[in-house]
Amino acid sequence: MNLILLEEDDLLEPERVRLSGRRFRHVVDVLRAGEGDELAVGMLNSRKGKGRIIRLGERSLDLAVSLEREPPAGLPALVILALPRPKALRRALSSLAQLGVKRIVLLHAARVEKSYWQTPFLEPPSIRGQLLLGLEQSGDTMLPEVLLRRRFRPFAEDELPGLCAGSLGLVGHPRAAVPCPRDVRQPVTLVIGPEGGFVPFELELLRAQGFLPVSLGPRIMTVENAVPFLLARLF
Amino acid sequence: MNLILLEEDDLLEPERVRLSGRRFRHVVDVLRAGEGDELAVGMLNSRKGKGRIIRLGERSLDLAVSLEREPPAGLPALVILALPRPKALRRALSSLAQLGVKRIVLLHAARVEKSYWQTPFLEPPSIRGQLLLGLEQSGDTMLPEVLLRRRFRPFAEDELPGLCAGSLGLVGHPRAAVPCPRDVRQPVTLVIGPEGGFVPFELELLRAQGFLPVSLGPRIMTVENAVPFLLARLF
Repeated sequence: MNLILLEEDDLLEPERVRLSGRRFRHVVDVLRAGEGDELAVGMLNSRKGKGRIIRLGERSLDLAVSLEREPPAGLPALVILALPRPKALRRALSSLAQLGVKRIVLLHAARVEKSYWQTPFLEPPSIRGQLLLGLEQSGDTMLPEVLLRRRFRPFAEDELPGLCAGSLGLVGHPRAAVPCPRDVRQPVTLVIGPEGGFVPFELELLRAQGFLPVSLGPRIMTVENAVPFLLARLF
Repeated sequence: MNLILLEEDDLLEPERVRLSGRRFRHVVDVLRAGEGDELAVGMLNSRKGKGRIIRLGERSLDLAVSLEREPPAGLPALVILALPRPKALRRALSSLAQLGVKRIVLLHAARVEKSYWQTPFLEPPSIRGQLLLGLEQSGDTMLPEVLLRRRFRPFAEDELPGLCAGSLGLVGHPRAAVPCPRDVRQPVTLVIGPEGGFVPFELELLRAQGFLPVSLGPRIMTVENAVPFLLARLF
């Protein structure tokens, strides 16, 4: 946790917050901070700054906060991810938030096991929790938006054209002939397939929407590596 | 597992192998393959090719193998990683193998907790197991070499100059002024610090050896993201 994320509900008065629970324990047990110490804080979906500990109790603490800096700019990327298996999903969400992606779609595909959609990790509090972990790690405050889409074809045909308008559309694909472009300096819609890749029908639908399959090199990567790898190439 | 890794011990005769245990179960339970089916195989530290199932038993199977292709070229990178906490260590090893890194040093640093060196995940069979998982995922056969170095200063002063000779020396560092260069087309020695970064003394020692601190952008990344991110930028 490189940034303590605050929410409006934490405010006691305009520049004073009270923390308890997980964030309180982090300050006490990990940072080992005491009264008078300054911590890096940020208001969710708003600015970053410092919080000085003005009261340290047994179960809560109060901070005097001053929020003067803007969070880092988000990546101009919409990332559409074939739903990974549950363990990888959790890490992918916190990883995407950590890397600065602000718009995420979790999508069904032929090679996504239907049972993956039953995981409790898709419930809104769980998704939000993973995103917050990513923001706390990276020092960001702007919560990404996550859409769940359980039907590939209606998504690709009806919704995708509007979502990707004005951006470069790319599909990470192990057997693509074209390498992923570098440092593109324009908005990108990046689609990442399931383990085993998209089936030909899905690739054709994406191609029909103007998406270009691009390769990550001669190795087949897990989603955990493919996400930071592709974003580092593109931006 | 996108490639079934074979070892010399699996050979019954020059082009025939017997698999049992984890690899046998993978073929039966995950690939659901039967007699006559062809699987992607590779001989550890040697070539890749196909294995045709010629006998499928209750607890083992035999493959007729033909190994005709070279594995993908390794990255021209030596990666020196401040020892991460144990869970992250396991993932980092399999991730480095998956990404094509062939030389890895796990190094102590001031901000590495000493207890991390006690983890059973540092025992040779555990390290090897994680590396094999990475190779199986990526479709590679060449096992990386891993060195453990528990003293920063003697390593940096005495051993590092020989290891990094002829390469571009870079340190991933959150507060560096210079962004990580792209597509460098030369060998690189890449040093990645612990959570919280290297202390100034360590950075100075690395600078004295010609290492340049480079930034990953405005966000602080976990080692899980920093490794693929930096390698994608560099190569």
